[in-house]
Amino acid sequence: MTQQVLNASIQKTVEQFTALDEKICHYGNIMGLLGWDARTYAPKKGRPIFAKAKGTLSTEMFKLSVSQEMGDYLETLTKPEVFAQLDSATQACVRERNKDYNKSKSIPSDVYNEYVVLASNANDAWEEARSNDDFSYFEPYLEKMIEMKKQFAEYYGYENHPYDALLDEFEPGLTVEKLDPLFADLREKSIDLLNRIQQSGRKPGSEIFNQTFDVEKQKAFAEFIIPKLGYDLDAGRLDETTHPFAMGINTGDVRITTRYEPENMRMAIFGTIHETGHALYEQGVNADYEGRVIRRGASFGIHESQSRFLENFVGRTKEFWTYFYDDLKQHFPHQLSGISLDEFFRAINCVEPSLIRVEADELTYNLHIMLRYEIEKGLIAGDIQVKDLPDVWNEKMVDYLGITPPSNRLGVLQDVHWSHGGVGYFPSYSLGNLYGAQMLNKIVQEIPDFYQLIQNGEFMKIREWLRENVHQYGKLYTPAELVKKVTGEELDASYLVEYLEQKYTKIYDL
Amino acid sequence: MTQQVLNASIQKTVEQFTALDEKICHYGNIMGLLGWDARTYAPKKGRPIFAKAKGTLSTEMFKLSVSQEMGDYLETLTKPEVFAQLDSATQACVRERNKDYNKSKSIPSDVYNEYVVLASNANDAWEEARSNDDFSYFEPYLEKMIEMKKQFAEYYGYENHPYDALLDEFEPGLTVEKLDPLFADLREKSIDLLNRIQQSGRKPGSEIFNQTFDVEKQKAFAEFIIPKLGYDLDAGRLDETTHPFAMGINTGDVRITTRYEPENMRMAIFGTIHETGHALYEQGVNADYEGRVIRRGASFGIHESQSRFLENFVGRTKEFWTYFYDDLKQHFPHQLSGISLDEFFRAINCVEPSLIRVEADELTYNLHIMLRYEIEKGLIAGDIQVKDLPDVWNEKMVDYLGITPPSNRLGVLQDVHWSHGGVGYFPSYSLGNLYGAQMLNKIVQEIPDFYQLIQNGEFMKIREWLRENVHQYGKLYTPAELVKKVTGEELDASYLVEYLEQKYTKIYDL
Repeated sequence: MTQQVLNASIQKTVEQFTALDEKICHYGNIMGLLGWDARTYAPKKGRPIFAKAKGTLSTEMFKLSVSQEMGDYLETLTKPEVFAQLDSATQACVRERNKDYNKSKSIPSDVYNEYVVLASNANDAWEEARSNDDFSYFEPYLEKMIEMKKQFAEYYGYENHPYDALLDEFEPGLTVEKLDPLFADLREKSIDLLNRIQQSGRKPGSEIFNQTFDVEKQKAFAEFIIPKLGYDLDAGRLDETTHPFAMGINTGDVRITTRYEPENMRMAIFGTIHETGHALYEQGVNADYEGRVIRRGASFGIHESQSRFLENFVGRTKEFWTYFYDDLKQHFPHQLSGISLDEFFRAINCVEPSLIRVEADELTYNLHIMLRYEIEKGLIAGDIQVKDLPDVWNEKMVDYLGITPPSNRLGVLQDVHWSHGGVGYFPSYSLGNLYGAQMLNKIVQEIPDFYQLIQNGEFMKIREWLRENVHQYGKLYTPAELVKKVTGEELDASYLVEYLEQKYTKIYDL
Repeated sequence: MTQQVLNASIQKTVEQFTALDEKICHYGNIMGLLGWDARTYAPKKGRPIFAKAKGTLSTEMFKLSVSQEMGDYLETLTKPEVFAQLDSATQACVRERNKDYNKSKSIPSDVYNEYVVLASNANDAWEEARSNDDFSYFEPYLEKMIEMKKQFAEYYGYENHPYDALLDEFEPGLTVEKLDPLFADLREKSIDLLNRIQQSGRKPGSEIFNQTFDVEKQKAFAEFIIPKLGYDLDAGRLDETTHPFAMGINTGDVRITTRYEPENMRMAIFGTIHETGHALYEQGVNADYEGRVIRRGASFGIHESQSRFLENFVGRTKEFWTYFYDDLKQHFPHQLSGISLDEFFRAINCVEPSLIRVEADELTYNLHIMLRYEIEKGLIAGDIQVKDLPDVWNEKMVDYLGITPPSNRLGVLQDVHWSHGGVGYFPSYSLGNLYGAQMLNKIVQEIPDFYQLIQNGEFMKIREWLRENVHQYGKLYTPAELVKKVTGEELDASYLVEYLEQKYTKIYDL
């Protein structure tokens, strides 16, 4: 009898919790559209006005997520004996909302408001610093930002390293203790491989890209390939923006953007494939999760694994271009005249240390990330001072990539992330590569003709595997649980190391 | 002392009221964007999902507008001695919110929910009825809708005619008593003029429009003219939709849409000018009203006066095309080859009784409206029964326009309005013509070279007059106050009658 009463009462709490979760998700869907509109079609004069409306909704959304009701529901639903009775989707929603609730509640509202103001000012200061190539504009703001991030880490709490608390915002459950060995391994092997590549003296030319490629043709090609890769245009759309992005407004509306530049055709092609990878993920989440907090990707790193899987493990293969190169040539007969598939393939895979992260190749990209990771960790631990950053950055660039930035603009000032308070974000990018390579290893085991499928243009079968194994689950599992479920193992850097080794040994004939 | 305390307390209430008003307006801005997106770019599969998110926000917005706080603030601020102390903008906001509050409160929530469901089902039934050309599909829903509208009229309250309560939703303060004589006069004179036109035997040919006009060229021409008419593209944008509309998201973001059909070039040109007229209104509202309920147009009728002013009183003049015809010919050299300006001008102004309201010319359009007004009034008064509507419609078509619809699809089933519950809306269209003609009379007095300005393409001077006299005020004044302020007189049908008489006497050489 008691049991029955308890169940009815739990049932009611679950319903109330789910309704509140849905309301917050609805506001989230709307915030997604507002973000998309601001970055695509909103007219200039309306944007600052609309930012206020967005602020109103965002405040309301935050209030709901830390409301008394939310607290009450979570208190009930997180009791172990209650939690155990919930279905797995509801468990995951409780886990996610509870985490949000505790994080948000842990920071006093005056501190949080100070942070929001700082983030806005720091971003302005960063823009000024970058355009003047003068770190001193940014320095005091970044110092304050790092102070606040240290403070946040204390509020959030951590077991070993304060940086763990920040990592957790982007990659739930990840710690320095876990990440250090992964990155150490990857770093050592990447630098070794890079050295061998450089010593080989071989330099596949990428000069073919130093031509003008008509923007309309680039657009036509992008629009041609995305549905073939499995992107559902009835549940999304492709637009143009300066900074490309994917925006999952809901499972039936996942929009992507790309950028076309006449002098940089690679950016549009691989940028579009990259965003398509993100979009396939959100289009593929179980539709039953619509209106629940678990409708999004499992983490930034897992999300990135899907975009990089498509961009690199599919999109930069010889097989991919065996299928698509004739189409590309039809779009650009003049520019690609006399360029063989093999030359094209090498040109899109040439490796060279460079200054700018977002322009780096597949191998050196991770070195850019690890440099930032080491710096962030040092800043939060107090081992590195903000005032020393330009020098630290340049020294590490020599250590990792063997080159020295000629200016801070091309060095420590290149990324926007810190100005927004995004400390702990950078590792996601390389985690994406690590997760992705481990999944690649698995898919090749399960679908032995994986590369043949690519060569035949049978991308739907690849999408189905990813949907079945990764996409459908949304946030149901934590990143670590998901990786274990998909690959049967913990995250292991050796898959990416091995992938890079094999790929570049072949291309560079090492 | 007491006075001081009272003032401080009022001041606080004003601030709280204004903050709540702003919050509702912010939600309204967002609802505007959601509506725009749903009608333009939202992918198919996301729409039904997004409709739920929109429903959540809409419910929240409604709750705020009838909240206890709103009631408390309004109770204080509507006290005559308090109201008198408020500035005029706040007075207008209190007036508008109070009206909303009372209307919304007057309808029991179960009745309102029933109405929302009915409106949705009635719309489906209307679509089915229209596509099957069978009124019986729609009849039971329309019967119920009319019953509910009668009920609403009782809830809202009225002095003389129950239809007054419904008219007031679209045209605040308007009554059957005021409208009947306006329309009677307009009807009599319009029918007389129409008879004379038909008896004249003159039929300016509109055959030139029975050609194919390239859609891209139509688009280029539309984009060419709208900034010249004063539309600020930094505070708006032009897109394509099946049903054109103007959407004022905020004063810095007023978007318009239009429709291009190769076989119907007039639709795009005059539709675009029409929506531009609406948009100039909302772009021109005093920017200080942003975030307040008075930021929108004064009424549906006043809004329509601005769109029709630009479309007809500017856009269908000989002077307008004296300025633009060469440009149009450059866009369509083949189609307009050998067509003189005079022929073109006559072709865009030919008068002919027709079945479909939205395709009617400037003169017969009002007859379509008056027919609907008489029917609505009769339905609400109980003098006309829904079951008799097809016959009533066809009889009135003969009375007003001298033609009989061959089917209900081309008759009583042509408009969507009633299925949505928009009873009392139709008069706004002709009120727009009446208001507009009276304003035209005024502007010609104040700017004697009005037609010369048009011929010179100096549209900004015309926009400035409209902005100064109409647009800037938003909802500060009621429609009746505004008309009095702009023209110095009550609304009077003689201005439209005289305008039509002069225009068509000349064109048809009567």
